[in-house]
Amino acid sequence: VLRSSDPPEVIAFHGEPGAFSEAAALAWLGEKRATLPCPSPAEVFQALEAGRAGRGIVPIEHSLTGSEHRTYDLLLKHRLHIVGETYLPIAHCLVAHPGVKLAQIRRIYSHPQALEQCRTFLSQLNGVRSIPESNTSGAVAQIKKRGRMDAAAIASERAASLYGMKVLARSIEDPPANITRFLLLGPEPLAPFPSKKRAETSLVFTVRDLSRQFFSCLSVFALRELPLTKIETRPVRGRLTQFLFYLDIAAPLADPNVEAALAQLRELAPWVRVLGCYPEAKRA
Amino acid sequence: VLRSSDPPEVIAFHGEPGAFSEAAALAWLGEKRATLPCPSPAEVFQALEAGRAGRGIVPIEHSLTGSEHRTYDLLLKHRLHIVGETYLPIAHCLVAHPGVKLAQIRRIYSHPQALEQCRTFLSQLNGVRSIPESNTSGAVAQIKKRGRMDAAAIASERAASLYGMKVLARSIEDPPANITRFLLLGPEPLAPFPSKKRAETSLVFTVRDLSRQFFSCLSVFALRELPLTKIETRPVRGRLTQFLFYLDIAAPLADPNVEAALAQLRELAPWVRVLGCYPEAKRA
Repeated sequence: VLRSSDPPEVIAFHGEPGAFSEAAALAWLGEKRATLPCPSPAEVFQALEAGRAGRGIVPIEHSLTGSEHRTYDLLLKHRLHIVGETYLPIAHCLVAHPGVKLAQIRRIYSHPQALEQCRTFLSQLNGVRSIPESNTSGAVAQIKKRGRMDAAAIASERAASLYGMKVLARSIEDPPANITRFLLLGPEPLAPFPSKKRAETSLVFTVRDLSRQFFSCLSVFALRELPLTKIETRPVRGRLTQFLFYLDIAAPLADPNVEAALAQLRELAPWVRVLGCYPEAKRA
Repeated sequence: VLRSSDPPEVIAFHGEPGAFSEAAALAWLGEKRATLPCPSPAEVFQALEAGRAGRGIVPIEHSLTGSEHRTYDLLLKHRLHIVGETYLPIAHCLVAHPGVKLAQIRRIYSHPQALEQCRTFLSQLNGVRSIPESNTSGAVAQIKKRGRMDAAAIASERAASLYGMKVLARSIEDPPANITRFLLLGPEPLAPFPSKKRAETSLVFTVRDLSRQFFSCLSVFALRELPLTKIETRPVRGRLTQFLFYLDIAAPLADPNVEAALAQLRELAPWVRVLGCYPEAKRA
């Protein structure tokens, strides 16, 4: 069992130095934390399982583009625990080699979520191709390495300065607010919370029919007036007729109402797993 | 109002000739239908709105990788109607220039969904990079055009033969079954169905809280024992605390129970829109 007072641990993140996930981890847990860049979200989970990192940070939801479905799938596949959440406002920059002008740009590289979040800006550029990359900071690193003067990346201001690149345009994301929610993962659950403390509990369950069974499952929370803050549905891989439901409840696992609801859910749903209980972050 | 007996119309699809969407349209509606390739899913919707096509076909869900979230967003943005659904088993092939051997391949291009559906196959290749492209058949066309002998695409067998390319490996998708559900869109709704006919009704509504309001909204279906076959949640763009729910009900809109449920839903939800009522397809 981990306590938030435990000594600093290495934090694994997806991307290269300058990634938004890394920035979220450092802003939240202190600039001096050691971080471990991973080439894919799956490798963040693997780094924790192998003990190469003590914590992992992963994006779970974007205010502009919705849930990170890959993260939900990985939470299911691995046996890690959610030990925290944080919200980070994301300001995207268009990043290129020093001396390059916007009119020279023919290709823009970034993570698909970032390209999608900057849709309006990109639609105003003529003859420019958007090309998906696996992460934002890696896109900057590639353009730097290859000396491409006709290309730009969408990434953080910090990624631009880490690679000695120039910011051509700032805050190019669509309005209104571009906020990402990140989860902090650990190999063990947090120690139980006092039942009065503001906390989130995340869980996942399956249902075989969306009518009576799903409604009964939801009723265990609704009839106790437990506040749900997120519902995410995913079909079970390979089956279009069985469903996974991910729920966030704004209450601690030790709350007697949550305990009673979970006991009843276990009677009704074929399969239930608690993903974690962690302090509730302030929505940015 | 459209009838299924209306004369053939041009069908818009995303991708280039040989795309799975085009194959689904032709298998379903007849090989002689005229098709209109579009460079993005958004342009399928635009082609219909501008009258350049009479029907559009779009993927909505994959048995291996879940929902096409972009399609859900586009259904909301545009004022088109769902007029049909179909299921197509998707067999992926690795496609390269004739004479190229698997050991020569260093890069594999395809749509991100196809790359994800072939995850196991790709993980067994060493030193090969997966590169996302906007569509499967377009990836074949690019490799053909550029004469790249170290690259392959994941696409349909039909795309390989249309471009005079060779299939290096067949059915490379993960087990169990890789089935895609497609929706057929039109500028007008279908004429009302007899209330006894097997039909699907698709709708979308918003809720401001996930506890009491969402539960009340679901109760209008559950208390009438209406069979829901799909629930898809999306946060409202730019807000992490308001939610959109997309529902499919296995009953026609003209069913008095569906009519009563919708009337009650309109009292409870801030906003409701019916996306279409169409004949129920047999799940492949």
